[in-house]
Amino acid sequence: MSTLKIAQIQMPEHDFPSESLEAACDAVARAAAMRADIVCLPEMFITHYDTESMKKDAVEEGGYEMERLAETAARYGVYLQAGTVPEAAGGKVYNTACLFDRSGGLVAKHRKMHLFDIDIRGGQSFRESDTLSAGDQVTVTGTEFGRIGMAVCYDIRFPELFRLMALKGAKLILVPASFNMTTGPAHWDLCFRSMAMYNQCFIAGTASAMTPEASYKSYGHSIICDPWGQILGELESEEGVLLTEIDTDRASDIRNQLPILKNRREDVYELAEKGRL
Amino acid sequence: MSTLKIAQIQMPEHDFPSESLEAACDAVARAAAMRADIVCLPEMFITHYDTESMKKDAVEEGGYEMERLAETAARYGVYLQAGTVPEAAGGKVYNTACLFDRSGGLVAKHRKMHLFDIDIRGGQSFRESDTLSAGDQVTVTGTEFGRIGMAVCYDIRFPELFRLMALKGAKLILVPASFNMTTGPAHWDLCFRSMAMYNQCFIAGTASAMTPEASYKSYGHSIICDPWGQILGELESEEGVLLTEIDTDRASDIRNQLPILKNRREDVYELAEKGRL
Repeated sequence: MSTLKIAQIQMPEHDFPSESLEAACDAVARAAAMRADIVCLPEMFITHYDTESMKKDAVEEGGYEMERLAETAARYGVYLQAGTVPEAAGGKVYNTACLFDRSGGLVAKHRKMHLFDIDIRGGQSFRESDTLSAGDQVTVTGTEFGRIGMAVCYDIRFPELFRLMALKGAKLILVPASFNMTTGPAHWDLCFRSMAMYNQCFIAGTASAMTPEASYKSYGHSIICDPWGQILGELESEEGVLLTEIDTDRASDIRNQLPILKNRREDVYELAEKGRL
Repeated sequence: MSTLKIAQIQMPEHDFPSESLEAACDAVARAAAMRADIVCLPEMFITHYDTESMKKDAVEEGGYEMERLAETAARYGVYLQAGTVPEAAGGKVYNTACLFDRSGGLVAKHRKMHLFDIDIRGGQSFRESDTLSAGDQVTVTGTEFGRIGMAVCYDIRFPELFRLMALKGAKLILVPASFNMTTGPAHWDLCFRSMAMYNQCFIAGTASAMTPEASYKSYGHSIICDPWGQILGELESEEGVLLTEIDTDRASDIRNQLPILKNRREDVYELAEKGRL
């Protein structure tokens, strides 16, 4: 199977994590009714996008919330990229994206590898590293649709990580993300289109809807790009569902026509996961 | 000095290399009159963009044509990124970009590292590697305006190379290039904007004008992008000069606000020139 339907759920923020969780599960049910194969939730969909809330609302690794999401994937028989949640583990908190398969099995987990510390003059300031710890794994897993990679938000500004996922066979990369009203208009489309083009794979970025009263205003604009760098679909800032059918074989097709991955000069430069050189 | 004026010369193809060479030198004189500090010529400006012509019109390393270009830089007191020429050396032909300084000294030379072999269904086919040999150096050099990197055309599809130039301190990267009427509309702006954004530097892409009777139709669209990924200036497909004033300090400024180069996870992945790990 190389053809699949992806549903990206651009949810608004809710007041409490329990409400967000149930709203997410309801959205999975609706997406399954639209015959989605993979359902994607936004970054930090379960809490507010501020470092205090991420700490306060952190969920236990393998705890109730993760079980509820896994069970929902199984109930509706879909793959579920369970957004990210603040994940408490070993005394630390991570910004973690889980991928559950159709039977609710955890097939991949990516902890955001690059933490977002930014201080734009006259724009957005944010220090994620005050609260969160960073993951240290390049995440790619096999599925019935071919290999799928995962990254979280700021990770998309690092071509090294995306190239490593492509070299590990990813034809589709799922990226829960929330750009803001400064970086979104400037860079959101550019990041997703260009990473899809350079690595000749599909990339789906799923964001929270813009909530006017939130302290961190999400740009929204959930997007999906194809291996030629074209935008297949994109929302605005409001709540919505982006449903797209893709054929992962198109990645192989583009790679045959314009063999970028083959034309890399591995005799001149080397890119590798540490400890695997 | 961090402020400089760049003149990008979007020249048409001429019938003979000698005509192209003199047209280029005339253009340098005009750009110097506009107070340009750096003048950039297009990829393969001296010949036609087909593998037969590149072979036939190859110029000797350090031969007459290169001396004429060096002398022109010195006469007008400008830096000259002398497009690329097919450069004959050691029985091989390279696609080579030279940078001469204000006194005509050769301060950098980049031989295209990634050769362009493409076969797009219903679109462009081209096998550069039938005729040309590839360079194997990451090229960055110091100038009075800070460090300048160089790459040629298809090289821009390889984030590894551009990241290595940024890590070697490049704040401005000069890229003589000729995309075609298939890849140009699809990817030209996207490549230049995104490489500037990821590496937080200026990138100037200088192309030949579209020549309707040529076998390879250059997309033109000479372009310059800033370290925030914005287009500062861009031509259409016709002959023209793009004159832009930039301040290379803006690269440091953007890198301070959004510290991408600092936030790289060198403990997780490693990118390095071979033999220098």
